[in-house]
Order: sequence, then structure tokens, then C-alpha cells
Amino acid sequence: MEEALQGSSVPGVDQIYRRTLMFGPVLCRLPGGIKTRILRPVASVFTSSSRMAKSKFEYVRNFETDDTCLKNCYIVVRLDGRNFHKFAEQHNFMKPNDNRALGLMTCSARSVMEDLDDIIISYGQSDEFSFVFKRTSNWFKRRASKLMTHVASQFSSSYVFYWKDYFGDQPLLYPPGFDGRVVLYPSNRNLRDYLSWRQADCHVNNLYNTVFWTLVQKGGLTTTQAEDRLKGTLAADKNEIMFSEFDINYNKEPLVHRKGTTLIWEKLEETVTKSVKLPNEAGEEVLVTRTRRRVSAHHCDVIGNQFWEEHPNILEDDNC
Amino acid sequence: MEEALQGSSVPGVDQIYRRTLMFGPVLCRLPGGIKTRILRPVASVFTSSSRMAKSKFEYVRNFETDDTCLKNCYIVVRLDGRNFHKFAEQHNFMKPNDNRALGLMTCSARSVMEDLDDIIISYGQSDEFSFVFKRTSNWFKRRASKLMTHVASQFSSSYVFYWKDYFGDQPLLYPPGFDGRVVLYPSNRNLRDYLSWRQADCHVNNLYNTVFWTLVQKGGLTTTQAEDRLKGTLAADKNEIMFSEFDINYNKEPLVHRKGTTLIWEKLEETVTKSVKLPNEAGEEVLVTRTRRRVSAHHCDVIGNQFWEEHPNILEDDNC
Amino acid sequence: MEEALQGSSVPGVDQIYRRTLMFGPVLCRLPGGIKTRILRPVASVFTSSSRMAKSKFEYVRNFETDDTCLKNCYIVVRLDGRNFHKFAEQHNFMKPNDNRALGLMTCSARSVMEDLDDIIISYGQSDEFSFVFKRTSNWFKRRASKLMTHVASQFSSSYVFYWKDYFGDQPLLYPPGFDGRVVLYPSNRNLRDYLSWRQADCHVNNLYNTVFWTLVQKGGLTTTQAEDRLKGTLAADKNEIMFSEFDINYNKEPLVHRKGTTLIWEKLEETVTKSVKLPNEAGEEVLVTRTRRRVSAHHCDVIGNQFWEEHPNILEDDNC
Amino acid sequence: MEEALQGSSVPGVDQIYRRTLMFGPVLCRLPGGIKTRILRPVASVFTSSSRMAKSKFEYVRNFETDDTCLKNCYIVVRLDGRNFHKFAEQHNFMKPNDNRALGLMTCSARSVMEDLDDIIISYGQSDEFSFVFKRTSNWFKRRASKLMTHVASQFSSSYVFYWKDYFGDQPLLYPPGFDGRVVLYPSNRNLRDYLSWRQADCHVNNLYNTVFWTLVQKGGLTTTQAEDRLKGTLAADKNEIMFSEFDINYNKEPLVHRKGTTLIWEKLEETVTKSVKLPNEAGEEVLVTRTRRRVSAHHCDVIGNQFWEEHPNILEDDNC
Repeated sequence: MEEALQGSSVPGVDQIYRRTLMFGPVLCRLPGGIKTRILRPVASVFTSSSRMAKSKFEYVRNFETDDTCLKNCYIVVRLDGRNFHKFAEQHNFMKPNDNRALGLMTCSARSVMEDLDDIIISYGQSDEFSFVFKRTSNWFKRRASKLMTHVASQFSSSYVFYWKDYFGDQPLLYPPGFDGRVVLYPSNRNLRDYLSWRQADCHVNNLYNTVFWTLVQKGGLTTTQAEDRLKGTLAADKNEIMFSEFDINYNKEPLVHRKGTTLIWEKLEETVTKSVKLPNEAGEEVLVTRTRRRVSAHHCDVIGNQFWEEHPNILEDDNC
Repeated sequence: MEEALQGSSVPGVDQIYRRTLMFGPVLCRLPGGIKTRILRPVASVFTSSSRMAKSKFEYVRNFETDDTCLKNCYIVVRLDGRNFHKFAEQHNFMKPNDNRALGLMTCSARSVMEDLDDIIISYGQSDEFSFVFKRTSNWFKRRASKLMTHVASQFSSSYVFYWKDYFGDQPLLYPPGFDGRVVLYPSNRNLRDYLSWRQADCHVNNLYNTVFWTLVQKGGLTTTQAEDRLKGTLAADKNEIMFSEFDINYNKEPLVHRKGTTLIWEKLEETVTKSVKLPNEAGEEVLVTRTRRRVSAHHCDVIGNQFWEEHPNILEDDNC
Repeated sequence: MEEALQGSSVPGVDQIYRRTLMFGPVLCRLPGGIKTRILRPVASVFTSSSRMAKSKFEYVRNFETDDTCLKNCYIVVRLDGRNFHKFAEQHNFMKPNDNRALGLMTCSARSVMEDLDDIIISYGQSDEFSFVFKRTSNWFKRRASKLMTHVASQFSSSYVFYWKDYFGDQPLLYPPGFDGRVVLYPSNRNLRDYLSWRQADCHVNNLYNTVFWTLVQKGGLTTTQAEDRLKGTLAADKNEIMFSEFDINYNKEPLVHRKGTTLIWEKLEETVTKSVKLPNEAGEEVLVTRTRRRVSAHHCDVIGNQFWEEHPNILEDDNC
Repeated sequence: MEEALQGSSVPGVDQIYRRTLMFGPVLCRLPGGIKTRILRPVASVFTSSSRMAKSKFEYVRNFETDDTCLKNCYIVVRLDGRNFHKFAEQHNFMKPNDNRALGLMTCSARSVMEDLDDIIISYGQSDEFSFVFKRTSNWFKRRASKLMTHVASQFSSSYVFYWKDYFGDQPLLYPPGFDGRVVLYPSNRNLRDYLSWRQADCHVNNLYNTVFWTLVQKGGLTTTQAEDRLKGTLAADKNEIMFSEFDINYNKEPLVHRKGTTLIWEKLEETVTKSVKLPNEAGEEVLVTRTRRRVSAHHCDVIGNQFWEEHPNILEDDNC
């Protein structure tokens, strides 16, 4: 009942039909179950006006703007954790690196890559991950908004979904957020420099954090004292502190912390036994070899040429 | 050890320092634990070159393009479930509407709104949800990419996080994905027409789905038969089928299915008792009233004027 | 001859046809005028390969990006003279205002408006002119690039074309340049504030220039002395200098200099005499009234309400 | 007088000062030339409020959006004549090609290139011209709007300015318009394919037009008859018609018509005689060699490799 009354005060949809609807409520008050031809038009009017309304409103679609990415450029989507400093505190992340958290990041990135196989390489460190779509990709018609929201969404739902695989019984206290951006790189050189930039950033931060937490955890300094101690120090000084005071050779620290994580596709030759039975013959076991693609993780230098020479199929030729 | 060797083949970072590094590995081969002045420069060189490398690579930042949203426009972020037809099948969603799934969507949207309080209204139906930022919002400096990825991320992680609150022991089989887009609306009329468009879409789809599944579930038709039966029917015909054959008045179907869900901020006056103790006085109980904002859900018509007249503070004046 | 040889080294077009083309040149060396069936294929091959080439290259069209302006916003194209300080010097413009130059700017703007009748208002001062397209305009499908280049082009060619009408025998020394930009304004208030901003800019500059050149031309100061004299002065001080030292009331200076030039469309009722002759009747003279639109220039305040109240049809309602 | 009255009705600027201004007009009505301290504040108030107004309105600047072109891409600006079919008719252009018109196009393009020396190559045919900025160009900070409007403006003003050099006494009837667009190309291959596309277009059109006008001018057909005759013909057929019926070898037609015009920079070694006079020595004549850059025009194939091999400095390496 209130529906019809409400309906009648809605000029957007119903103005033209108000006269009909005015009879509607009256009929509705008849004892329930009475079906009359007269009642039916009310419903039909209401819904056909809705369809009319829909087409009347559809002009708003044209306010969407086209954000197609320039062709023949690598499309990079980078995600960054939102307020992860606080998130790390609240979930007792180990300092300076929490292997569970890094593993979960990598696992979530792998989930994104397996979902979007035009991603040729991705690189992560700390609370960030970058995904590179091949330059000829036509996923989502190269629409930037679709690409970045899909990556952000899949990564985030995976992070929560796989949490318990990395943190076991330690509960996730609230759903975390990541924000993203899209950047285009026209040449192989530009793309490699982008990845080098992120890996150099990994190095600079990890060196600082490693010394800082060594000073605190092993040296007994407060965080303020550690900060003061490191103020103005160069990389050489930081290495020196670790080496002479704590007997730590930074270059022997785990590669995953110093180099971050690079995910690429790798081809696997798989040989499986298959029973084949041709008509009028006895069944037979045959060996079948097939190639499968699988995401593999690397913790190596991506700044130099070696990695790229060893994996020549990641990048497409500039001359295309 | 392999680190330094690897390093020496990396022209990007190390070319200039190759001479130094050539000595590095040699020294590293000395029996472990020997600390000499000579060894240290290797590490320092390596890290200072990394910092240099970082600044050398930093030019790639300038490839980011500015996607600031035009000022004084409403910013709408709409999310749509990816492959939710299949997702619904695999998780046994009820047809035509699964209240658990709708509840989880609304809960996730609420989580987004509580996180981004510049969202003034959001509207959802089926597997989509739209979020409207106020026209004067300056969140993320109005950068479209940040706004939409943050909404997509927060919504998706919330969807997984709150799954069990709505589906209990039924497991979530895999992390779902949502994609998003940004649309700008310059005037109140345009924004209202956008929301009307989505609600009219809700109506048209829900009417179809309701009849379709009634024919299948109560009428015993196969899905193909139901589809054939509805081919070419108008809204009036669909109402007629439900009414005359199944004694269902579509207008009495639940509002949440016919109208979708609208989330807005509501102000609550809260009166709490507080014990106050001034110095040198006995403690005293006082009543304190404070205003709190809270997200409230509505399942009503948003096409007509009534809703907007009842909530005059959602929209800002066009003349600003 | 060199054509075919050249062609044969062109893999882009001719690779497939190289065999045919190798015979081509030989045949071409036959004494002129001999027409044989054999010769013809050469030409035909060459051109059909060109057409094939064209379609092969056509993919480059897809690198164009869509720059459609958001709907329901006013589109403002502003032009600014390039190096007009030097241009003014070289063409001996009067200081502080050259009425010939201002007239030519207005004439060129009028030419643009008459060409693009979706421009509802334009405003100019000094060496700049702004053109406002109505918010519902669909000229060039609202493509920003088309709108601004067309305005820049038409204005520039008009400036040269009409030069002699304003500068008579004084020659134009070289073709001048203007650059442009597009800005969108979602509301009437925003658009009016844009125009107010330009008119306030006109005022501030003109006041300064008027005092400055008065000090130089009537006060006998060098330009450096005049600059020093005005350093740090407020508007009040500038008025005071003109009033007390040169007996000039700034408010009596010509409106065109203080307020700039506003062009709008005005409706004219035109009554013309027409001879009408119906069949089988004597000819008759009748009065026919028709409405014509014409661009009219105003030099008045556009910051206050009066102008907008007097011309209520320039702006469209925000609520659309 | 009317100024002050007008001012007082302008709330945008003057509201705060209304009280002062109310006295203003009264004083203004005193017999002219009376200078009193009291009068002056009126003027000062008016102008300081204008400056305040200016800053109050300045927020509208922030509605400009950034349209910086992606770095490391070639920036192509293409201009097309507007309504040039009609323009050509009205100015009696020769069919199928008017050498005066083509010369004027090239002259205008040259004027653009000489003005913007980051343009490395430009290509024109018929009523269009494309300008290519080098991929590392930072002109106008790579702002698309500035680049394309400046090119459109300079080209258009040059077209009018140099008209008489090509058309002599034949008057230009009205100022012509050109519109433009910007397209980015990430690789050398893409850029070359763009130029190839335009040259293939030149070929296809010119072949058609040449046959068409031959049929009309030499064959005595009407334009409709010529159109019918060519309907469905392939390039081979068109060559055949010209060759067998009119004894014309299309491949001997002028290169400028078949290949269009390519403008590039060429280095010239210039040797000039200079008198040098060192202190305490007799004057002496010396030969000084200097390098100058000059725009040179070519009418050759740019689809194949030869042109690019002969001019290796036009394109920059992709690997940058």
C-alpha cells in the first residue's frame, strides 16, 4: 500500500500515470486475494513507466570518459598498502622484515597474475607490488580504470583470503586497503628503469631498516637514539656499523629482503602417463609431454642485464 | 659471494665501480669472519651505487599522468562483480535474490563509506555498488586512480573479511574480483538521474528475474522454457503472469529486491551519563549529549522527490 | 625510372611484388610511347600495393586518444598572444593601450563567434580572448582538441586577414601566434567567477599600465624610474598619483580599457518590405518582420549581477 | 558618474565597501576638477576591492586539467583544412592539384617549423599537414593543448600572411580555418607507419583525382559520368584508363602530387669571409666555416627504408 502512495508522489517516473495510480490504492484495500482485471493495470503501469524512466535516465552513461591506455606501451599498475605502518604494528609484524607478510604479498600477487595472464612480470617489496601488462595487451580494451581496479580488487580479496595460510591462528583484525595507479612506459629501457627504480628503493630502505632495527634489537638503543645515530650516515657508514659493531655482513642478508620478489611466467615441460585406447585395439599407456605455464618467484637483481638475458621472452621488441 | 659476482656483471649500477668490485670477491673468499678495512669498501661501494642508481632511475616517475577529477563535480565510483554469474552458481546463491549475498554487499559498502567519509550516498543492487563523493571533496586530491582503486580494494577485502558473517559455515571458494570506474556529474540533476538510472535498472532486472524463477521454481518450467515464455513480454505481461498464475503481487515483493539499497549518513543525538569530578569536590554524574554520524540503509524509491526532500543535506547547492 | 628502382628497395610496400617490379624498370627503358600489355602491370602492381600498404598502416589511427569534454559543463577556450610584448614593440603599439590592436582582437573574436554559433559569450582584454561554448554544445562532438585548434586557427587567420582594416598602411611584419587551452566549468557560478577573474585581471593590469605610462609620458620619468616609483604601491596610491599629480581620474578612463570587451549574441527584429505576388493577383508590398542574431560588443562590468540580469538568456539553468 | 553607481550595484566586488561608495557618487557630482581628500578614497576602495576580487576568483584556475603528453613518445600534430572543398571552389583551385595552394601549405608549414625547432619532420599533402616533435621534446612542457593550438595558430596566420606570395593579385575572400589533433607514437616503427599511412593516403587520393579530372577535362565527361565510370575500379583499372585512353603514365606525374611534401632540417656548412683585426696588428681576412640548419623540402617516398637511411638523424633511438 505505501508503495503505491509513494509511487504517486514520484514525478520522475509516474507523473503521467498519476490518474491511474490514484485508483490503484483504493483497489488494493479490497479484501486480499480478490483478483480483478481492474487491479492489474496498476502494476503494469508502474513497471512500464520504470522502463521508460530507465531509458530517460540512460543519458548519464555518456558522462563516462574514455581512459584507454596509449597503445604499444607497457602498462604498469602499482599497488601500495594504505596505512600499513599502523597495520604492521597492530598485527605484530617482525622488524625489519616479516616473512609471513612478504609471503602473503607474493601469494596475493601470484593470484592476480594467474587471473590476468597478460601480466608478464610483477615486482614487489615491502607493502607495494607492481604489475606489468605486455605492451600489446588488449585486456579490458586497455581501459586504465578497469585494469587498475581489477588488480586492486583481486589483490585485496586474495590478501584476506590467504591470510590464514601465512599468519595461522593470528587473526586479521580488519580488512586492509591498497591504492593503485597506472603508469605507461613506451620503451623497454623505460620499463627496465622503472623496475630498477623500485629495486633500488627496496635496497635503500632495507639497508636503513636493517641497521635501525639492529641498533634497537641488538644494540639496546631506543628508536629515537637509533634514528639520531643514523642521521646523516651514508650507506658506507651503515654497513660499517653493522659490520664492526654487530658482525653482520649486509650482503649476506636474505636476498628476498635485499632484492624483493620478482614474479614471471615459466614454461614447464610436463610428462604424464595417459591410457589411450584406440577402437578395436587393446588399451595402451603412452607418455604425453605438454607445456604448462606457471608463475615462478625470483629474488635476484633485475637492474643488470643478466636477469633479462636469462629470460629473453619477457620483453617484446621495441621495434613493433 | 655470488652476490658480488652477480653485481660485477650488472652495468646498470656497477659499471663505474667494476675495478673496486673485482677485488671484492677475492677478499670475500678469505676465511669467514676476518674483518679487514679492505673488505668494507666493497659493501659501501655497492650501496652508494644503489643510491646513485635510484636517483638515476627516478626519472620514470615523470611518466605518471595527472588524473585529477574536474572540481565541483560529484565523483561516482561504481563497482561491478567480475564473473558473478559463475560465482553465484558456485556458491549456491538463492534465485532470484540471495539475501545473504545482498547483505554482504551492503556490509562491504558500509565498510567503504566508514573509511571514506566524503562519500555522501551509495547505492547498490545485485552485484554492483555505486559510491558518490561530495562535489567539494578533496580526498586523494581528487585523483581518479586513487579514489577508484581504494574503493575497489576496501570493498573487496571487506567482502572476504565479512563473508562468514553472512554465509556462516559455507566456505568462500576463491577470492572474488570487482572492477570499477569513475564518472563525474556536474549538477544535482545529473547525479539524481544517475541514481535513478541504476534504480530503474534494478527494477527492470528484478521483475524479469522474479517472474523467470517463479516460472521455474513454482511453475515447473525448465530455464529454456521460462526464457521462451518471457521472450517479448512487456512489464505488464510479466505482472500478469505472476498475478494470475501464481497469485503473486509483484508490488508486495520485498523492497530490498525491488528498490535496492541506499546508504546515507545519519546524525544521531546520543545522551550519555558521564561522571565528572572537579578538583576538591565530590564526583557528580552529568548527562552529556553529543552528535554522532552513522551509516543507515534505506530500501526506498530514490527516483522521486520525496527521498531528497526528507534528506536535504545529501546534495550541495548547484550554485557553488 | 628512379621511381621503380626506388620502389624496389622499399620493403614496407613492395616486398611481395619485388619480382614483378624487377621486370618493371627494364620495360620502362623501351622507347617511349610503346604501349604493351606487359608494361601495364607494373603500374597496377605499384598502386594496389599502396592501397594494401594504406590498410596495413591504418592501425596507427588507434593511437589517437579520446578527449571529449565532460557533458553539461561550459567549455572555455582561452587564447593568449605569443610574445606579444615584442610584437607590440615591433608594430609600435600605443602605450598603455592601442585602440587599433584592441579593435583587431575584437574583430577576430567576432569572426570566431560568427563561425561557431555555440559560443554564447566571449571576453577579451589586452592580448587574450576567452570563448565560452554553451554547456549543451555538441560542436565537434565536444572534442577538446578540435574546439581549441579551430578557435586558435580561425582567430589567427582573421587577425592577419583584418589587420589592414585597423592598421591601414602600417605593414604586418610577420605572422603572429596565439596559444590556447580548454577549461571546463560545471556551474553558472564557476563560469561567472572565471569571467570575473579575467575582468579583475584587466582592471589590475590596466591601472598599473595607465599610471606607469602616465609617469613616463607626462611625468618625464624613465621606465626604470617609473617602475621604482610604483614598487610596493597599492591601488589607492596609484589613483592618488594620477589624481594629484596629473589631474586624471582613473574612473573616467575609457571603459574599453578598464573593463575589456564582452561579445554576446543579440536578437534584432528586422522589418523589411517585400513584394509579394500571388497567382492571378496584382503584386503587393508587405512588411515582413524577422529575427536575426548578431554579435554585439559591450564594455561593462560583468562581475556584478546587473549584466546577467539584463541578459538572462546567456546562461542555461544549472538544474539541467 | 555612472561608473560609481554601477559599482555600487555589484555585490561580487563591492558589497563590503558599499557604505563608503554611497558617499562616493555624491562627491562625484561636485563640479568637475575639484580635488579633495574625500574623493580619493572612492577610487582607492574601488581598486583595492578589485584586487581582492581577483584573488577571490582565482580558484577557477584549478579547473584546468593537466594534458601533458606521455614522455619518450613522438608527438604528432596534424592539421586539416576546414571546409576546404568549398574554399578550393571559391578560390578557383586547379584540378586535381593546385600548385599555388600546395606551395602555400608548404610555406606555412615551414613557418611553423622555423618557429618550433623541436619539430624534426613534417609531412603534407592536399589540405593537411602533420608535424612531428622529437620524443625528448620539452616544448611547452609537452602540454598537448599548447602544442596543438600554437601549431594551428602559426600555420593559419602564415597561410593568410603568405597568400599573396602564391596567389598574387587573386584576393583571399575570407580567413580560412584549420583544425588539429595530437597523437602520440611510442616507437620509431609506429611513427614511420604513421607517415607511411599519410603518404599511402596521398597516393590513393591522388590517383583517383588524377583519373577523375582527366576523364572530365580531357575525356569530356561530366563529373557524374566520371564518378560512375570509376565506381568499383581498382588502382590497376585507373592506371589502365589513363594509359590506354589518354596516353598518361601515372608514374611520370609530378612527385609532389604523388608523394606529397616532406620537410626536414638540413645542416649547411657555410664558409664566409670575415675581417679580423687583432690589437696591434694589421687587419686580416679569414675564412670562417659555420654550420646552419635550414628546412628543406623533399617529394620522395618515405615508406621504404631509403629515405630514413639517407637521413639517419631524424629519429632517435628507441632504446632511450
